[in-house]
Amino acid sequence: MAEGMEREGIAPRKRPVTLRDVAEEAGVSLATASKALNDQGRMTAETRARIQETARRLGFRPNGLAQSLLRQRSFTVGMLTNDTYGRFSLPLMAGISEALVDNGVSVFLCNVEDDPRLGQLHVDAMLEKRVDGIIATGKRLDRRLPIDLSQLGVPVIYAFTEPDADAIAFVSDDEGGARLAVEHLVRLGRRRIVHVTGPARFAVVHQRAAAYRAVLAEAGLAEAPVMMGDWTESWGREAVDILFSQAADGPDAIFCGNDQIARGVIDGLRERGIDVPGSVAVVGFDNWEIVAAEARPPLTTVDMNLAALGREAGLTLLSLVDGKPVEPGIRKLPCRLVVRQSCGRPPGDQ
Amino acid sequence: MAEGMEREGIAPRKRPVTLRDVAEEAGVSLATASKALNDQGRMTAETRARIQETARRLGFRPNGLAQSLLRQRSFTVGMLTNDTYGRFSLPLMAGISEALVDNGVSVFLCNVEDDPRLGQLHVDAMLEKRVDGIIATGKRLDRRLPIDLSQLGVPVIYAFTEPDADAIAFVSDDEGGARLAVEHLVRLGRRRIVHVTGPARFAVVHQRAAAYRAVLAEAGLAEAPVMMGDWTESWGREAVDILFSQAADGPDAIFCGNDQIARGVIDGLRERGIDVPGSVAVVGFDNWEIVAAEARPPLTTVDMNLAALGREAGLTLLSLVDGKPVEPGIRKLPCRLVVRQSCGRPPGDQ
Repeated sequence: MAEGMEREGIAPRKRPVTLRDVAEEAGVSLATASKALNDQGRMTAETRARIQETARRLGFRPNGLAQSLLRQRSFTVGMLTNDTYGRFSLPLMAGISEALVDNGVSVFLCNVEDDPRLGQLHVDAMLEKRVDGIIATGKRLDRRLPIDLSQLGVPVIYAFTEPDADAIAFVSDDEGGARLAVEHLVRLGRRRIVHVTGPARFAVVHQRAAAYRAVLAEAGLAEAPVMMGDWTESWGREAVDILFSQAADGPDAIFCGNDQIARGVIDGLRERGIDVPGSVAVVGFDNWEIVAAEARPPLTTVDMNLAALGREAGLTLLSLVDGKPVEPGIRKLPCRLVVRQSCGRPPGDQ
Repeated sequence: MAEGMEREGIAPRKRPVTLRDVAEEAGVSLATASKALNDQGRMTAETRARIQETARRLGFRPNGLAQSLLRQRSFTVGMLTNDTYGRFSLPLMAGISEALVDNGVSVFLCNVEDDPRLGQLHVDAMLEKRVDGIIATGKRLDRRLPIDLSQLGVPVIYAFTEPDADAIAFVSDDEGGARLAVEHLVRLGRRRIVHVTGPARFAVVHQRAAAYRAVLAEAGLAEAPVMMGDWTESWGREAVDILFSQAADGPDAIFCGNDQIARGVIDGLRERGIDVPGSVAVVGFDNWEIVAAEARPPLTTVDMNLAALGREAGLTLLSLVDGKPVEPGIRKLPCRLVVRQSCGRPPGDQ
């Protein structure tokens, strides 16, 4: 008896029946449920009838606005990237997908590399497929994708790439991230902190260096000239050679611009017989698992929270698609410090 | 005068005018040109008229079959992966894109992780968008994607994942790749060759080990027990400890199951004061740039040619979409050896 009631949907419901409820009950995707109830799309007559019957049985009552939105929506979102290597685009995509999948939306990723012709081809294809919106991502905050997305006629969100003016964009707060790293070193009692980082042509190099200088000034510590080189392990090792080749006191902490440099620094120090973290503490940037976790000792590093950034971008795109107003502008999302063993323990943490 | 002739298209043509010629001349995508000539799709009346005029001027004459194929085609292909990390899926995607972009086709990548519900959602979305076909990729040759693709009604190609029976699949020839590595060591005069590799639950571990044993047998050399562990640097270092902790002769060459193990092996040898390649030669597997090129010395390693594999998969899918017959079966594509400095020079190469 109770079972029968449950199956008939007579049990009390706390909230209105949604399209999602109908789709789950009928065992179909949201997109299919939407098409069935709007008499659109390809499916067998049996499937359509079954979904409509399920909606009737559950008491699904789409309101006018929702219905018209459903009609227009394709439940797909296009994602553009020029990050062929995937270091940045894949965590972003994981976050975007996570936000959208729960709303029954699929993400289609296209790689436009740095080729305007490719960019146009893929954006045309996305528009032909009537994606509900586009998320543009990249590998550098100071470079644009090779295509103008300002007049597409669908909502566009920028994430981890340089946006158009008046666009909605999400980027990592690199200054804030660098602050976390240097403040951590100061709090651990380090006094001679140097910064070894990447090439001057990257905007983030200057943002992180500015934060390094600011934190040292606030702590009343002397800054050393910022050492710029490649984003490589070999530059990290070379920097150690430079820093420790003189007889004078070397640094007691090195804040590195990425994890590869930090790994080279750690290897260089170990090979000189200098203890990490005993004599020198090391912090990286990126939290690239494969590099950071296998360092000896494992690397304390700044994580840009790319998956969270992707999730925010995805949810904001959904708001736009739903017709909700979103203020334009660039949102900087906070980084977090991942503490492993390359700096030793914080003083309070015995 | 000559200029005018060229611009009017009166200059002699060696081959029939294709849709691509029309699209390029009109400055639009292939998909747009196709839609314009078939009176389909969204575009302004001016654009449509301009494209049709361009086709007329160039003398474009679609044959009946081509025209009907064009009408049905969407010029998009769906790509599925469960490789969240992107180590394998991104080189594959680069190859697939390269093959398809020249034919005006966009690739939409969806990550299905290992979740059947996600897989169904994304495949449904691709079919709703009427993709011309689907390429299923993965991160292991001995695991299936979490979704049945055997009855989709569009062509499906498998690349670097376990295929359905009777499917068309492209995989790397891991035995052949391992052969390249061990034969290289034998040719260099190494006589005590060991194999340090990943966990036994991976089919490729057994395929590569079989090739290792076969090459040693053919060369009349003694095999050592295959050492299986994790796919990590730390396992590589640990293996060196095991191999060189006894007083007896250690190996003079180590063939590693991946580049991370090889990197650990190289670091372990250096820290024991054992010269690479002087005393011990090391070969890796994967040619993962970031690991292989930064090893000290840089790593000689097997490259699975994933981009070429993706390109073949993409071209084969296009053939299927064009209605050409393709024999089902699994195609093993050759690997190649990338020679850097961890084995020394071949004897003939002075």
